[in-house]
Amino acid sequence: MIQKVLLLHPGEMGASIGSALVSNKHEVVWVSQNRSKDTKNRATGNKFVDKLSLKKAVTYCDHVITICPPTVAIEVALSVKEMGFKGIYIDANAIAPSTASKIQEIVGPRFVDGGIIGPPAWEKGSTRLYLSGKCSEEVVSWFKDSLVDARSMKNSASALKMSYAAYTKGSSALILSIRALAKKYGIEESLMEEWEISQPGLKERSESTASGTASKAWRFEGEMLEIAKTFLDAELPEGFHRASSEIYKRMADFKDSEEKVIVENVIKKILN
Amino acid sequence: MIQKVLLLHPGEMGASIGSALVSNKHEVVWVSQNRSKDTKNRATGNKFVDKLSLKKAVTYCDHVITICPPTVAIEVALSVKEMGFKGIYIDANAIAPSTASKIQEIVGPRFVDGGIIGPPAWEKGSTRLYLSGKCSEEVVSWFKDSLVDARSMKNSASALKMSYAAYTKGSSALILSIRALAKKYGIEESLMEEWEISQPGLKERSESTASGTASKAWRFEGEMLEIAKTFLDAELPEGFHRASSEIYKRMADFKDSEEKVIVENVIKKILN
Repeated sequence: MIQKVLLLHPGEMGASIGSALVSNKHEVVWVSQNRSKDTKNRATGNKFVDKLSLKKAVTYCDHVITICPPTVAIEVALSVKEMGFKGIYIDANAIAPSTASKIQEIVGPRFVDGGIIGPPAWEKGSTRLYLSGKCSEEVVSWFKDSLVDARSMKNSASALKMSYAAYTKGSSALILSIRALAKKYGIEESLMEEWEISQPGLKERSESTASGTASKAWRFEGEMLEIAKTFLDAELPEGFHRASSEIYKRMADFKDSEEKVIVENVIKKILN
Repeated sequence: MIQKVLLLHPGEMGASIGSALVSNKHEVVWVSQNRSKDTKNRATGNKFVDKLSLKKAVTYCDHVITICPPTVAIEVALSVKEMGFKGIYIDANAIAPSTASKIQEIVGPRFVDGGIIGPPAWEKGSTRLYLSGKCSEEVVSWFKDSLVDARSMKNSASALKMSYAAYTKGSSALILSIRALAKKYGIEESLMEEWEISQPGLKERSESTASGTASKAWRFEGEMLEIAKTFLDAELPEGFHRASSEIYKRMADFKDSEEKVIVENVIKKILN
């Protein structure tokens, strides 16, 4: 059965998720109001239908998927609910399970919690969309045989996403903070020599991490705070990801930087 | 020239460092007062000479090396200074550079800051002793051709040790905390499956980290706090290692556990 799905909002990840739905003949709707030119290009390029206002889009669609920075997840849910929406509401943002619970309270029992792991889904096998909640199997069926590997799970998909990113983005922030620390104390060269001896590959990882995260760091700050919350709610120490949040915050200026960012420049920013 | 070196105190690491000095014909002295039977066995087995009291040992020796838990580093320095000691004082503990500076103020200009990287030095090439301070070259010469790879460096050896352990012990604590988090939210199986797909080897690392750190965790708590201080002094976030300290504290009960500790038991302790 063809579904009419409202996608809020088609960023790089969202565009690929929407495109997987389009490839399965579903109708993907978006709202151009207040969105950037890049978003418009992505939406048009992937054959999403513009309904111009949230009100019109919500009225027209059966379901909503939101993929947005975690800091606005609750606000988006409130704005959709306000329009009288009653369909399946999929929150695929990187949020704490307790934040997901709040959104469930707002949107009701047809809430599906989602967690995306992997890069934007333009290749088979690259990206998994984990889904939990009583309608999760139904959502999985929309993605059948598409480039998005959608999987239903019994417990919180958000908890899985948080636990996963806790390591990948947490250890990246740790490595970058250590590069900055070594610079500050003037022992960078000695540390790099010691890493070569006893931690082979770590120097190279610190360099590729710097280049790979710099332009995205601005949006990791909020995600790290959601992870910190996830730890705190579980009576585990939140410090790893509070610190990670601070490191990414200091790197926020690299947003949308088009040149390759080298580790030395990341270190400078972290120390400034 | 043969040196008379007081070693405070011969733990597993210290015994191997002392043994390297003995292999170079230096005389290594220790003090049995208030030490355990294990320490006595190590000292006797490695041909260290017992001078029974700190006063006698300090009076007899030219130099002092301390290798002890970071929380007692300052106390040890004060007690040695009180005996009128004027020789080279090597602090090889895992302490923040600012703690090392305090010890330098206590013991004076013949202070040598040391940082040990690697396991107890029973094999050639396994372990490096980094040394900084104006007498560091002299100390390096005592270890010539021994199993300890002693290296002099211009800037703080403690900063190098802190930066190094910041990653090894910090990332280990992070991984174990994430295993505990996943357990708490009931998504352990999903996380392990996802790690198998996109983070190959991480599950195995979490298991070997649990077994490898459990019995030593009790003494990592203080080291993590010194690392946190090192970050804070550099105006970098201290949260990674405050959190690591908490994780190792929760694991302290595994001290001296003789059976292999499995990851499931570590998770339980962390969650308790």
